[in-house]
Amino acid sequence: MQALENITYDELNVGDSVTYTRALSEDEVVLFAAVSGDVNPVHLDPDYAASTPFGERIAHGMLSGAFISAALATALPGPGTIYLEQQLKFRAPVMLRDILTVKLVVAEKQPKNRVLIDCIITNQNDTVVVTGQAKVIAPTEKITLERPRLPRVLLNDNGEPREAHLDDETPE
Amino acid sequence: MQALENITYDELNVGDSVTYTRALSEDEVVLFAAVSGDVNPVHLDPDYAASTPFGERIAHGMLSGAFISAALATALPGPGTIYLEQQLKFRAPVMLRDILTVKLVVAEKQPKNRVLIDCIITNQNDTVVVTGQAKVIAPTEKITLERPRLPRVLLNDNGEPREAHLDDETPE
Repeated sequence: MQALENITYDELNVGDSVTYTRALSEDEVVLFAAVSGDVNPVHLDPDYAASTPFGERIAHGMLSGAFISAALATALPGPGTIYLEQQLKFRAPVMLRDILTVKLVVAEKQPKNRVLIDCIITNQNDTVVVTGQAKVIAPTEKITLERPRLPRVLLNDNGEPREAHLDDETPE
Repeated sequence: MQALENITYDELNVGDSVTYTRALSEDEVVLFAAVSGDVNPVHLDPDYAASTPFGERIAHGMLSGAFISAALATALPGPGTIYLEQQLKFRAPVMLRDILTVKLVVAEKQPKNRVLIDCIITNQNDTVVVTGQAKVIAPTEKITLERPRLPRVLLNDNGEPREAHLDDETPE
């Protein structure tokens, strides 16, 4: 089982970075709609989406935000981080089968263990889809933990439950 | 079936507001972890969470962000909205059984159909848990749509799939 290890405030240096890659799927977008209540048809209805400037279904912008949260919480700085602020700019649409890479870069260390972290998300074509900045309280104690196991997720569209297609996280 | 109706740029006035209430559940937090890959044990592991300053498991901050996205996309301005920016401040922890109310207030109308919208999330004790501001391109055409149906979501912790407990959205 993969472990989660954090990087403490003292260990962090400006310019340190980590990447977190995630392959999207239609199921992921459907589950994000279910969890958030964001049932905007541009994410769910192929016919409606075809009539929009995007021409096809797009992923929720805030799903990209969720991947930033995942990268902060599991990799940089990792467990023990307290999330204070997040600023996001949605720069290009994310399509349902895109592969997104979140890059986090330590931008500034501030007093009281505060850290500013630049966030850039690119797709498989190196198009920047989201930029932003996070402010966190970095952990002061080194922690190594087992990655928690999640239950299996199933979807039932038409009477027959099937395994949801969700990417496994791959922080590097 | 409840319809989704948008509010066009011309119809929006500074000070217009909408609320969107959502009861959290443990399943919702687990599903957010699965969708985002954010498996921070503070959200998932009761024993670990008891050792943190929060004393118990908390919800992902970005799950509150997802509820803001849902309120923007389904209620104000609703379908046809293009999400440009989101700023979030996480001000107080959200517990796994909190009932959150997102309030959106039109703060400023700008040229080219741009609108700034203040976002405030409170819990059942009227504690402000998140504040922020969204920038969107409001729709120019009136749209009324059927709310898309979502598949049922099931979780399988130990060999027996069961229905996930997810709140239905209740925009007012």
